[in-house]
Amino acid sequence: MKFFGRMEARNNELYIGGVSVERLRQEFGTPLYVIDEGDFKEKAGVFMDNFRSDQFATRVIYASKAFTNLYMAGLLAELGLYMDVVSGGELYTALKGGMAPEKIYYHGNNKLFQELEFALAEKVGTIVVDNEYEYQWLSELAGRERVRLSVLLRVNPGIEAETHKYIQTAKDDSKFGMSIFNQKTQDLIEEMSKDKYVDFRGIHCHIGSQVFDETFFFASARAMIQFAYEMESKLNVDIREINLGGGFGVYYTEKDQPFELADFLKKYIQIIEEKLHALNFELETISIEPGRSLINNSGSTLYTIGHIKETITGRQYIFVDGGMADNPRPALYQAEYEAGIGNKINSEPVQEYTVAGKLCETGDILIENIKLPVASPGDILIIPSTGAYTYSMSSNYNKIGRPAVVFVEEGECRLAVKRESYADLIRNDVVRR
Amino acid sequence: MKFFGRMEARNNELYIGGVSVERLRQEFGTPLYVIDEGDFKEKAGVFMDNFRSDQFATRVIYASKAFTNLYMAGLLAELGLYMDVVSGGELYTALKGGMAPEKIYYHGNNKLFQELEFALAEKVGTIVVDNEYEYQWLSELAGRERVRLSVLLRVNPGIEAETHKYIQTAKDDSKFGMSIFNQKTQDLIEEMSKDKYVDFRGIHCHIGSQVFDETFFFASARAMIQFAYEMESKLNVDIREINLGGGFGVYYTEKDQPFELADFLKKYIQIIEEKLHALNFELETISIEPGRSLINNSGSTLYTIGHIKETITGRQYIFVDGGMADNPRPALYQAEYEAGIGNKINSEPVQEYTVAGKLCETGDILIENIKLPVASPGDILIIPSTGAYTYSMSSNYNKIGRPAVVFVEEGECRLAVKRESYADLIRNDVVRR
Repeated sequence: MKFFGRMEARNNELYIGGVSVERLRQEFGTPLYVIDEGDFKEKAGVFMDNFRSDQFATRVIYASKAFTNLYMAGLLAELGLYMDVVSGGELYTALKGGMAPEKIYYHGNNKLFQELEFALAEKVGTIVVDNEYEYQWLSELAGRERVRLSVLLRVNPGIEAETHKYIQTAKDDSKFGMSIFNQKTQDLIEEMSKDKYVDFRGIHCHIGSQVFDETFFFASARAMIQFAYEMESKLNVDIREINLGGGFGVYYTEKDQPFELADFLKKYIQIIEEKLHALNFELETISIEPGRSLINNSGSTLYTIGHIKETITGRQYIFVDGGMADNPRPALYQAEYEAGIGNKINSEPVQEYTVAGKLCETGDILIENIKLPVASPGDILIIPSTGAYTYSMSSNYNKIGRPAVVFVEEGECRLAVKRESYADLIRNDVVRR
Repeated sequence: MKFFGRMEARNNELYIGGVSVERLRQEFGTPLYVIDEGDFKEKAGVFMDNFRSDQFATRVIYASKAFTNLYMAGLLAELGLYMDVVSGGELYTALKGGMAPEKIYYHGNNKLFQELEFALAEKVGTIVVDNEYEYQWLSELAGRERVRLSVLLRVNPGIEAETHKYIQTAKDDSKFGMSIFNQKTQDLIEEMSKDKYVDFRGIHCHIGSQVFDETFFFASARAMIQFAYEMESKLNVDIREINLGGGFGVYYTEKDQPFELADFLKKYIQIIEEKLHALNFELETISIEPGRSLINNSGSTLYTIGHIKETITGRQYIFVDGGMADNPRPALYQAEYEAGIGNKINSEPVQEYTVAGKLCETGDILIENIKLPVASPGDILIIPSTGAYTYSMSSNYNKIGRPAVVFVEEGECRLAVKRESYADLIRNDVVRR
């Protein structure tokens, strides 16, 4: 198991942010989401310090959907990051947690009318418009409320980041945004730029998730700048911001080879500066939206090992007290993880196990075939790199309450989300009469 | 779209249980889970009336994990069904909803010690023991509390229901239960039958989900009876109950060809009676555990259609106000569904659409390529056959509140679960100081 951030071994026990896994279990129980706050702050610093230019302003916008709650929003606000939200609920959470509305970007392919009303009422900084129908709603709303709305348009630059080579294609079938090759896109930009209630500020794109080849990002940046330049040249519009989205690949297992972040970000800036220079084109702001790449490796999940069961075929199961309810990614994406035994962290991994959850479903397997030290009931199993898309995608399947979330730093623990109780599970239920 | 239960068209509008989809939307909003209570009661009746013998008692045990809440538990209690739970949370819900503890079966591969304590304290009718380690805990607990515990043992009869022909195999790799071919299984049965705090009543199995070939169930029933008979013959044990589990396939789309339930259940009983007769063997009780096959076709989800978006390739997207947060099955299992436009239910399906959710994820597609009448924003999209594993697996991904659940019957609506509000989403959050 690869160590991240402030993980260290002391007397064969794993410490995260100066707190032992045993102390975490004793104080908060398991399953438990643990966030290494120092590591997260450092990672945020890497983004903010390296994605920086003296030719344009830069913004690092955290993609909430990876992991958010009131505590997280407060932390982001303190660190000076921006925040991207994709629903009224994420917006509500960001605001209640202390994020300034002007630092919020609101995304989504199907924002509801009442969500847009809410965003306008709260004076959200930027609405990222998905399509022409959404713009009609926004224009109507902004006119009614007599507010000037700041918007970007989500476009598809046609960079396919699915293969090892990128292909620029006009065939974009995504539910998100509008193709830069579509005449309708250009028409919409022209229309928005004439709308007195809309401040059309620029364009946004997002090319994919878990992308490990940095050239996709460079190709996409160049294509976006080129498109912005062409729009300015052809139409009477002033494009001031390009938001390049996220998708920077992270480590889950040895199969993943992420690029070195600081170097990548510096190079990214350089590529952008070069392209702007080549076109003699100026922009006020370039933004990026890391989510997973900011939070994933700072998060771990702790479980208590229950029974260890050997089947007739010799397969050794480690049963843990959570499963696909707290981490649906293995079932949903066949995602792979590493793991360790937190209270035997330096012991030799000599036995092959399958880590199974407690849910009543055959697919509730967290890890297939992983070598670990010999496990005993009561041991603490840690699955690292679970900061993103675990807590945020968690369910109450099998009526299991969702785990608590704890931030750790320099030997201190701060509870961010309380564990769900049995009573929580039925709080909205109505008894049959 | 195939109609189920009390669905009917009146003036081109769909009614469920005598309530129009428009009225449901007006009263409760969308997305909305709607349960046709009359249809559910009828289905429960089919099970209880046909799975019946004059040679042994029968039990129809509803598998909670498919869909449960306080209302549902109350309804099941009223109808005289038993209930199967797989966690402390499901047990809590069953009891609070009005289910008698003696009618509850408690399952799970990794029941926690505190869950077993809870089950004992509440005098749960039957604990279905998964393995020898769990039995040790139970025995210890029962001894400590001086209660006599009624248990079944989950075994794997080695019937593989994955292919079109069944194969009986000793190679069972499942995380659940113990193979009947494993000597340890026999040893455990012997040990349990001698434990004065344990009333070892019999065995349980579950061969799989969405099984369409009835011969698997027959083969499994024969194998279980044979095994019970052999155990009685070899060991000094009295086996009184066999619980055969569920897995009866249901209709989602035309690709699914479920067997006719009443006929199947009668035949099932006949096969069981014949096998018992052939062995000159007697049992007190035979139980089955339908979940999906009881609830799925009684449930529908209503959505409001937002924008209809055509991509540059000509793909027509219908955007709805929910998605993988309220129904993760398409993303998780590539599950397919039918759909209709509730307010245009008799109109000709002339246009091919892709139904996409509002979540910020490429995989948030509910249905690919379905023919529907020409859709307009504001129309009501209904996806039927969503009673099972939608509400129960729902999440707050993208911080979207979970939909309300409404039961409809004879023109009346009864709210069973209230819609989650923004405040609900952060109720356990702690603000960062």
